[in-house]
Amino acid sequence: MHQRFTTVRRHTEDICQPLQTEDYVVQPVTDVSPPKWHLAHTTWFWEEFVLARHQPGYKRFHPRYAFLFNSYYDSVGERVLRLHRGNMSRPTVAEILEYRHYITDQMTRFLENVPDNLHGLIEIGLNHEQQHQELLYTDIKYVLGHNPLFPPYDPDFRETPAVAATPGFTEMPEGRYAIGHTGAGFSFDNEHAAHEQFLLPYTISNTLVTNAEYLAFMTDKGYETSQWWHSDGWAWVKEHNVNSPLYWHYIDGRWHRYALSGLQEIPMDEPVTHISWYEAAAFAEWKDMRLPTEFEWEAAASKIAWGQRWEHTNSAYLAYPGYRKPPGAIGEYNGKFMINQMVLRGASVATPAGHSRDTYRNFFHPSLQWQFNGIRLCKKQTW
Amino acid sequence: MHQRFTTVRRHTEDICQPLQTEDYVVQPVTDVSPPKWHLAHTTWFWEEFVLARHQPGYKRFHPRYAFLFNSYYDSVGERVLRLHRGNMSRPTVAEILEYRHYITDQMTRFLENVPDNLHGLIEIGLNHEQQHQELLYTDIKYVLGHNPLFPPYDPDFRETPAVAATPGFTEMPEGRYAIGHTGAGFSFDNEHAAHEQFLLPYTISNTLVTNAEYLAFMTDKGYETSQWWHSDGWAWVKEHNVNSPLYWHYIDGRWHRYALSGLQEIPMDEPVTHISWYEAAAFAEWKDMRLPTEFEWEAAASKIAWGQRWEHTNSAYLAYPGYRKPPGAIGEYNGKFMINQMVLRGASVATPAGHSRDTYRNFFHPSLQWQFNGIRLCKKQTW
Amino acid sequence: MHQRFTTVRRHTEDICQPLQTEDYVVQPVTDVSPPKWHLAHTTWFWEEFVLARHQPGYKRFHPRYAFLFNSYYDSVGERVLRLHRGNMSRPTVAEILEYRHYITDQMTRFLENVPDNLHGLIEIGLNHEQQHQELLYTDIKYVLGHNPLFPPYDPDFRETPAVAATPGFTEMPEGRYAIGHTGAGFSFDNEHAAHEQFLLPYTISNTLVTNAEYLAFMTDKGYETSQWWHSDGWAWVKEHNVNSPLYWHYIDGRWHRYALSGLQEIPMDEPVTHISWYEAAAFAEWKDMRLPTEFEWEAAASKIAWGQRWEHTNSAYLAYPGYRKPPGAIGEYNGKFMINQMVLRGASVATPAGHSRDTYRNFFHPSLQWQFNGIRLCKKQTW
Amino acid sequence: MHQRFTTVRRHTEDICQPLQTEDYVVQPVTDVSPPKWHLAHTTWFWEEFVLARHQPGYKRFHPRYAFLFNSYYDSVGERVLRLHRGNMSRPTVAEILEYRHYITDQMTRFLENVPDNLHGLIEIGLNHEQQHQELLYTDIKYVLGHNPLFPPYDPDFRETPAVAATPGFTEMPEGRYAIGHTGAGFSFDNEHAAHEQFLLPYTISNTLVTNAEYLAFMTDKGYETSQWWHSDGWAWVKEHNVNSPLYWHYIDGRWHRYALSGLQEIPMDEPVTHISWYEAAAFAEWKDMRLPTEFEWEAAASKIAWGQRWEHTNSAYLAYPGYRKPPGAIGEYNGKFMINQMVLRGASVATPAGHSRDTYRNFFHPSLQWQFNGIRLCKKQTW
Repeated sequence: MHQRFTTVRRHTEDICQPLQTEDYVVQPVTDVSPPKWHLAHTTWFWEEFVLARHQPGYKRFHPRYAFLFNSYYDSVGERVLRLHRGNMSRPTVAEILEYRHYITDQMTRFLENVPDNLHGLIEIGLNHEQQHQELLYTDIKYVLGHNPLFPPYDPDFRETPAVAATPGFTEMPEGRYAIGHTGAGFSFDNEHAAHEQFLLPYTISNTLVTNAEYLAFMTDKGYETSQWWHSDGWAWVKEHNVNSPLYWHYIDGRWHRYALSGLQEIPMDEPVTHISWYEAAAFAEWKDMRLPTEFEWEAAASKIAWGQRWEHTNSAYLAYPGYRKPPGAIGEYNGKFMINQMVLRGASVATPAGHSRDTYRNFFHPSLQWQFNGIRLCKKQTW
Repeated sequence: MHQRFTTVRRHTEDICQPLQTEDYVVQPVTDVSPPKWHLAHTTWFWEEFVLARHQPGYKRFHPRYAFLFNSYYDSVGERVLRLHRGNMSRPTVAEILEYRHYITDQMTRFLENVPDNLHGLIEIGLNHEQQHQELLYTDIKYVLGHNPLFPPYDPDFRETPAVAATPGFTEMPEGRYAIGHTGAGFSFDNEHAAHEQFLLPYTISNTLVTNAEYLAFMTDKGYETSQWWHSDGWAWVKEHNVNSPLYWHYIDGRWHRYALSGLQEIPMDEPVTHISWYEAAAFAEWKDMRLPTEFEWEAAASKIAWGQRWEHTNSAYLAYPGYRKPPGAIGEYNGKFMINQMVLRGASVATPAGHSRDTYRNFFHPSLQWQFNGIRLCKKQTW
Repeated sequence: MHQRFTTVRRHTEDICQPLQTEDYVVQPVTDVSPPKWHLAHTTWFWEEFVLARHQPGYKRFHPRYAFLFNSYYDSVGERVLRLHRGNMSRPTVAEILEYRHYITDQMTRFLENVPDNLHGLIEIGLNHEQQHQELLYTDIKYVLGHNPLFPPYDPDFRETPAVAATPGFTEMPEGRYAIGHTGAGFSFDNEHAAHEQFLLPYTISNTLVTNAEYLAFMTDKGYETSQWWHSDGWAWVKEHNVNSPLYWHYIDGRWHRYALSGLQEIPMDEPVTHISWYEAAAFAEWKDMRLPTEFEWEAAASKIAWGQRWEHTNSAYLAYPGYRKPPGAIGEYNGKFMINQMVLRGASVATPAGHSRDTYRNFFHPSLQWQFNGIRLCKKQTW
Repeated sequence: MHQRFTTVRRHTEDICQPLQTEDYVVQPVTDVSPPKWHLAHTTWFWEEFVLARHQPGYKRFHPRYAFLFNSYYDSVGERVLRLHRGNMSRPTVAEILEYRHYITDQMTRFLENVPDNLHGLIEIGLNHEQQHQELLYTDIKYVLGHNPLFPPYDPDFRETPAVAATPGFTEMPEGRYAIGHTGAGFSFDNEHAAHEQFLLPYTISNTLVTNAEYLAFMTDKGYETSQWWHSDGWAWVKEHNVNSPLYWHYIDGRWHRYALSGLQEIPMDEPVTHISWYEAAAFAEWKDMRLPTEFEWEAAASKIAWGQRWEHTNSAYLAYPGYRKPPGAIGEYNGKFMINQMVLRGASVATPAGHSRDTYRNFFHPSLQWQFNGIRLCKKQTW
């Protein structure tokens, strides 16, 4: 645990290594937090939930930081409104790194003798920090990808992990399938209670939709044809003049994209990414296919190659049977978001090693594009 | 069919009988349409989808009405933005009634010899008009209930139908339950494909939550305690300063409500109504209970007394396995709303006779309060 | 005074005579009030400021009407927010007319013996009602002119009064000119203190800009050329996609307008109307001319023919030297609006007889188009 | 000119010297620009209007900077929307300083042989940069003063320059006064044409309203009493919950303010600052006094001590008689803002040495508080 703690903490800082000081500060839209905020907030989590409560005589690094770096835990005092994070030039990046090192040191010492009943809390802290590592990648991409100069994050960064996928579809038989987490490893509360779901037979693609396939939808006037879209999706397209995935730019007669390695022509055989649920659903309808449910996805997870993109599903993010919110502030972690969001399954290039599993439930609002998400299709069937 | 048509058309007008001309015109919020718009839109449906397409030589009543009274069928030409309905003083109520009578006459003649293959379309038209009858009640209540003079709609109107409910809970065993519509009667596309759902054992209340129970939640600072609320629900409470169900007013030390019979003290033993999904979910959490899923509700429907309120469920409005949108404009009826809404089951005092069944899926955004909805609880269980 | 009172009251109702009941109710935008609100508010003024305060034993017509029909007098209790006027279906038009007749009767009796010290207040009431008569015309035009059916108000209504104007310009010499109201007749507080302004020599047009001249500006890409516009005006054009005066429609290759007599081709030689201050200023700049100041206008008033349109000036609506707000609620009449508005001088077809004079200061926000306003130009000069 | 250029350019950078890199980046509200944007925009002015047009063979520093750092000159190509300035982490501060030094070098060489006909343009550039120096102070104050940690800019910074003011009032006789700029020195176009204004006798305060006097207004419920306020001012107070000048905080029973030297108790005898025109006008009304017009101010300028605060006047920012916009992009400098703003006269601690004169017309929207502004009163008089 000691070793994992050190590794996780260091990885957060490594992700930020290519940044300029200025890149740490800005918040272009509400959903994107400034990188320095992620650095501080993940640190605050250890201070607030571990050190301040369980380390006798612990002295806080700064009396105002708990106020500044709480994200959304309503039960832990007042908080800075999310919208204002990008206005905070202070504390500086250097001060926040100092804060990080102070807490890392304190925690390292604390972990030498951590009581058994706190192991679960430490695990949550590590997984929490890993979630913010993923957000760091997506938020950095948003900041740099919306800068008119399109500065690369890292010219060698590859956004599509190689996976061993066989082309074609896999047929899944009707049956009762085990859903949710069991066993010894870490899991979030929202993966419980493990239970069974009865599924009708279904046919699921082994591979993700490619940029070439998505471009065919665009070329066929996909963004101008209301019949493929949900009503809310169509309103979203009209209000925001959406006509392509996020980060796509039509330059000199060819489609380009901003990737973490810089502005480049679209690689046509890579899986499409940065499309909202609305776009994924419209594309599926155009193909006369559909998105899988999260249960179909999980039941097929051992038979399909996943890990390239967070995969949109046709399941709303709601409680499993038998779900209970944990008590206290940690109970705010997942349960209170169980409305108005859709589940994504799998993992992406931004997901830290050791943080993915086939029972993991990610979730976002159907309009959001800035994650590394993608589309896997099922056939429409009748029985 | 001829007889049903006449009955349904007349009922729409009967609902409006107590109104003053001025009441037909206003649209206080986007979701509430002016009564005269409902009168016209239900008429337009028959003209657009039946007469104009299937009655040879049909002459439209007015060349602009198709433009004015389309609601949301994107595939049928341009439409008046929903927000602007309340600005249309013309056509007058008298002109719209003339339009109604013209179409009713034309349809009556058309129905004397309706081809078999149009029976399904006629049924949709009748059910469509019945849905707007329910909206007429809720929209009229909104218009009058938000007028500072609180004019009664009908002093004799009773909002709570009597049902034969046994107090207590019903235990439902684990099993595979039939879900969705089968058989000969009318059903909407969203009730298909009929299929099975595997359910774990659950315990569901025979009765709805009463005003007295809900007031206990309020008295226990329910609206001021973030832990009971979803994150979006809490934001909704804060933004709109919600502190009671819609139509409740604290006057001279006692809680009152506006009902269609006028302003009155809260009848404590009636089921609470006009609460959003957010409020229903927060109340359930405060009780340490939960809302049923729509499948649990349907499986128990023959054992519980329902029909007093549309009952909030913990199911998102999504496609059933095997669902397919019907082709053409009628395909826009349900499928395109299958995102960002929650399912309500049952029926209410405003539901027209003959329009309810235990497979019916109603749906609204989780913030909306203006329907006659209510709360049925399940126990939290683990196995 | 008795006779004038009766005449003014009757004229208000005469203006509404062509309306349908539904037309009295709607409020398409914040600045436009429902006609029935004008009917009630002008009545409330007499009740609140005269009868309730000066008629011993006066019994109010309805206990809630003071709340419903106050417009903006903050010192007279709570008020209905302006934005919500269009949601009030009750009181009905018939009830409001009953209210009018009750107050007219009470006032008629009161005026038989009105004390001398109330003559000023009665005059304000009469002028207040006359101002709302003008607003009735412009608000009715907005309601009917924004209805997709373009119903005429009165097919015989002529929007351009004939005036005896000599083409060309009038040269005005440098000098000190008397500004503001003097003498015995009624005037508003904002026309005081009468004082002198020193003006440099200027040259002012005898006639108003015509529709033909304005169309030339449009044809010369006036709405697409930023250099003619103020910064705020340009932003207004872009945000609202303005490309013509209000009520203009390009139909089948020709420009039409909605007038109170109905939809018709633009009469090219009539003065342009329904243009915002931003448009008037941009037009003037395009002509290499300028708008007069309100002082230049007043000094020239006896030499130019006016009364067709309210004429935009390049003067902000601010206090004259020596201005003092009257005490009490009447003090809210004019003084509190002396910021963010521009002065218009003259009168229009909608101005009631006997309500205009050359010292009258009308005022609106520079973005507003719905009044019968127009453009008179001065030459740019240097000395 | 060569020497002045060097001095002005260096002063801009000196102002930023106490900042951390992060402070250069953020834009908390639309009106406040990031310091690094000011550094770049003032540099772009020289590149765009001088070097690119008048230095043969000039090579731009970076092809995209003209796009990034144009502020509002619509006639000079596309521009970055003002609202988005705070999202631009690149170019970095270091890169912008490199850009500054490149342009300063190029300009220095250019100025060795500057043609006579460009002297006016160079003067405008110098004055433009000086205006941004003042904005740098006020924008830096906004950024640091809205940070929850209240970091001082410079602990030794004094916000109130000493002036030799005699307490009391000065009486000014009726007469024709010379207004506007004459003579050889630099002036902006909006100070022309110089002309005469006839003024009635008036009585103007020798000193500015102090914090103590303003606090008396607050204590007398000034922010809760509608009668002192303009209608738009009252709406502004209500919408933004304004209850004190900007930067004032009530802490532990005493009023404090954030100053550039840090958080501190209010110095009661210093002139109040950071109050909007609405607040200045309400305070004056409460005192039964009034704000001077800009002409009264200018006529008295040699008799009152000014320079501590930009002084609110009761004059709208409009063209002087005989005003003409200069041709070309420079013509956008002042003229297009001549609507919806009020004139402020004088100068403040943030005004650079050599940049103030008694004919200078500063202007802001009446709701804005973030400048170093203040209140000078005139007596209400009648003749």
